[in-house]
Amino acid sequence: MIKAYGSGNSGNCWKVKQILELTGRPHEWIEIRPSQGATRTPEFLALNPLGQVPIAVLAGGEVITESNAILAHFAEGTRFLAAPGLARTRVFEWLFFEQYSHEPYVAVARQWIAFKGLKEKNAALLPEKWERGHKALGVMEKRLAKHPYLVGDSLSIADIALYAYTHVAHEGEFDMTPYPGIAAWLMRIAAEPGVASMEPARKA
Amino acid sequence: MIKAYGSGNSGNCWKVKQILELTGRPHEWIEIRPSQGATRTPEFLALNPLGQVPIAVLAGGEVITESNAILAHFAEGTRFLAAPGLARTRVFEWLFFEQYSHEPYVAVARQWIAFKGLKEKNAALLPEKWERGHKALGVMEKRLAKHPYLVGDSLSIADIALYAYTHVAHEGEFDMTPYPGIAAWLMRIAAEPGVASMEPARKA
Repeated sequence: MIKAYGSGNSGNCWKVKQILELTGRPHEWIEIRPSQGATRTPEFLALNPLGQVPIAVLAGGEVITESNAILAHFAEGTRFLAAPGLARTRVFEWLFFEQYSHEPYVAVARQWIAFKGLKEKNAALLPEKWERGHKALGVMEKRLAKHPYLVGDSLSIADIALYAYTHVAHEGEFDMTPYPGIAAWLMRIAAEPGVASMEPARKA
Repeated sequence: MIKAYGSGNSGNCWKVKQILELTGRPHEWIEIRPSQGATRTPEFLALNPLGQVPIAVLAGGEVITESNAILAHFAEGTRFLAAPGLARTRVFEWLFFEQYSHEPYVAVARQWIAFKGLKEKNAALLPEKWERGHKALGVMEKRLAKHPYLVGDSLSIADIALYAYTHVAHEGEFDMTPYPGIAAWLMRIAAEPGVASMEPARKA
């Protein structure tokens, strides 16, 4: 059986849980809290020397890392990832956008503010996180003001990847009122059968 | 014919040039220098409202963004991207690793030092770039000390993506002597038929 290691209030880990649920794959979820040192134990480092979650361990023991690579792995051959061609490429554009232009700002602001209580310590750095996070949210809004999903007319792993930290962006003190298209999309994704909400952020 | 817009001394743009050459696709290369405002013209913004290079414009006029999504698009069905399965997933692990854990440190240090002359201005931030860049290089070394390529036994777009900024890491003042596996791999990739070196960094 597939084993997934992750933290229930991490957006990157939430992605993995979602794709396993959405594709109906039996799996064991092993809760791992990096803040409690659980990714630094010898047992975990034997699975992933990088000491990062999420990871997925296949039945044969192979370990897969990188949340969006895990999404693509389990979405292959399902309705959540189009066949090779332009539609698939559009999905990957969003996946790389998420990791390069969205997560480092939207997720990190949330981490500092909602988890680690580092808001004061990082006061000088937060404005750049907010500025670049809003730039990313603006890119999403441009698409979602006119389309129900990020790619095509149905849920794909592009939506799953971006929903992860966008639906908790307010925990990083992002004002979401300028984004009615995103707001409608968030409700649309939340209403998809099989999509679960993430655990609330907790002080680590 | 495919049109590719990019800057000859950008690693992300180099990736696009390489995959077009390696897969034998006729294309027109349009040199665009962000430092000279060329990504902010109305003509360019009509192609990519984000104002970023590289982009690829297909014969039908569709614009593809995100360097690693462009790599995957043109590598589909070729020997540079394995069929769906674990080998393909390993390629995507490296592509996401590159954009999240490598490029923001290795490429940015180079940009500040070799292009923009911002070394002094960013003196307080450079140590973190070097530290996290070395962490990424260490991950590569762990693989390349024992294997000729990042995935499998032949050149893939994982190698192309990581070669882009690794082969010019010294321009960001990364000391590469701790990485003999990377050094051998750099020579191996450079010797691959069809792989061209990148233009040297120039002061913008």
